[in-house]
Amino acid sequence: MQNSINALMFDVFGTVVDWRTSVANEVKRVPGLESVDHYQFADLWRGKYQPAMERIRSGARPWAKLDDLHLENLIEILSEMGVETLTEAQIHDLNRAWHRLEPWPDSVEGLCRLKERYIIATLSNGNVSLIVNMAKYAGLPWDMVLGAEVVKHYKPQPEAYLKSAEMLDLQPQQCMLVAAHNSDLVAASQCGFRTAFVARPTEYGPDQNFDTVASNDYDVVAKDFLELAGQLGC
Amino acid sequence: MQNSINALMFDVFGTVVDWRTSVANEVKRVPGLESVDHYQFADLWRGKYQPAMERIRSGARPWAKLDDLHLENLIEILSEMGVETLTEAQIHDLNRAWHRLEPWPDSVEGLCRLKERYIIATLSNGNVSLIVNMAKYAGLPWDMVLGAEVVKHYKPQPEAYLKSAEMLDLQPQQCMLVAAHNSDLVAASQCGFRTAFVARPTEYGPDQNFDTVASNDYDVVAKDFLELAGQLGC
Repeated sequence: MQNSINALMFDVFGTVVDWRTSVANEVKRVPGLESVDHYQFADLWRGKYQPAMERIRSGARPWAKLDDLHLENLIEILSEMGVETLTEAQIHDLNRAWHRLEPWPDSVEGLCRLKERYIIATLSNGNVSLIVNMAKYAGLPWDMVLGAEVVKHYKPQPEAYLKSAEMLDLQPQQCMLVAAHNSDLVAASQCGFRTAFVARPTEYGPDQNFDTVASNDYDVVAKDFLELAGQLGC
Repeated sequence: MQNSINALMFDVFGTVVDWRTSVANEVKRVPGLESVDHYQFADLWRGKYQPAMERIRSGARPWAKLDDLHLENLIEILSEMGVETLTEAQIHDLNRAWHRLEPWPDSVEGLCRLKERYIIATLSNGNVSLIVNMAKYAGLPWDMVLGAEVVKHYKPQPEAYLKSAEMLDLQPQQCMLVAAHNSDLVAASQCGFRTAFVARPTEYGPDQNFDTVASNDYDVVAKDFLELAGQLGC
């Protein structure tokens, strides 16, 4: 199998970076938000992520990039919490917290090893500037940023996977999606992608009770990116 | 000026890689083409590059990626030369010569230094797979592949520059185009980009008599990428 795979494509939020801790830490530092439960704030913000994209996937709303959806969702949360003291500049800076997410401890070393043998690209719903800025911040050595903004479709729409493969001039079966989320891998598999599950059992905090194990028969199951590299011959 | 620039975007063919020598060397190795003048072959092939893109820029033809234009042009040249012995597989492999171009001696080291401080992206008319495969082959450490296929416009159309900047969420004046071609830099400058000229006086062979010097007042003029890195504080 290894020799027939040319590109590894990565889900990013949760799979490569720990968005919850990172966003919570940024919230904690914002003047006026010291007293809010910063993990709850991160969870509320993330909770509005899928519904916002769903309006675009369903066609109810034209294309908008994730930075814009994040900003609208942030303004909603602040309004729901009755927080009125943040300046526009503070709100925009907090929205850029998603450009400054910390990688899991194994992510950078694992990606560097995998990059030696494979094309490594993002296949994320994050927009290009978000992914590029995060890569510069966290040292993530991507060969290419694919996914939502480049192909103008949000996962799990099939076009998100298929058009990303097409842009590398590869057949779906020459591509492997690496993700910590069963639903993402199932959607990729239905498009013909190979699949690798890497569990991130604290992505949603200590009480996470879903996506802690592989719920399907994937090509590879690994506990982290170092084990993934080993299994893929790197 | 340095501090207000966030991204360096690079022309690739001629500026980063020596397409003429690389393509000529590949032509020389193809069974059945040993006896043709391989530099002349490379020049003929490159000569059909602008006219092919012009049909798309003018709207006479819908979008097509450069790999496809290269292939059509290659088939034309072989036909014009009366070469009928190449198999389809040989023709397709020769077309991929453009994915295996050699960098100029200073390119990789210069880019690695520039990458420490700036986002470095391609702004080429080459399609994504061509640029990504070339990067893997030649060790070019791009942060992102922008340009023609991602924005669906060929340089020097303004959209090629403006949409590439927009994808990084940058204003044009936060971006600098690095190129060995005066016409490319003039077009970028008219879009508000900063400009850096790096001469590649043998790109078109020993008798090159154009683009050997900067013909306009650019922000930076450097003899190679190492000098460029020095001038940009890297």
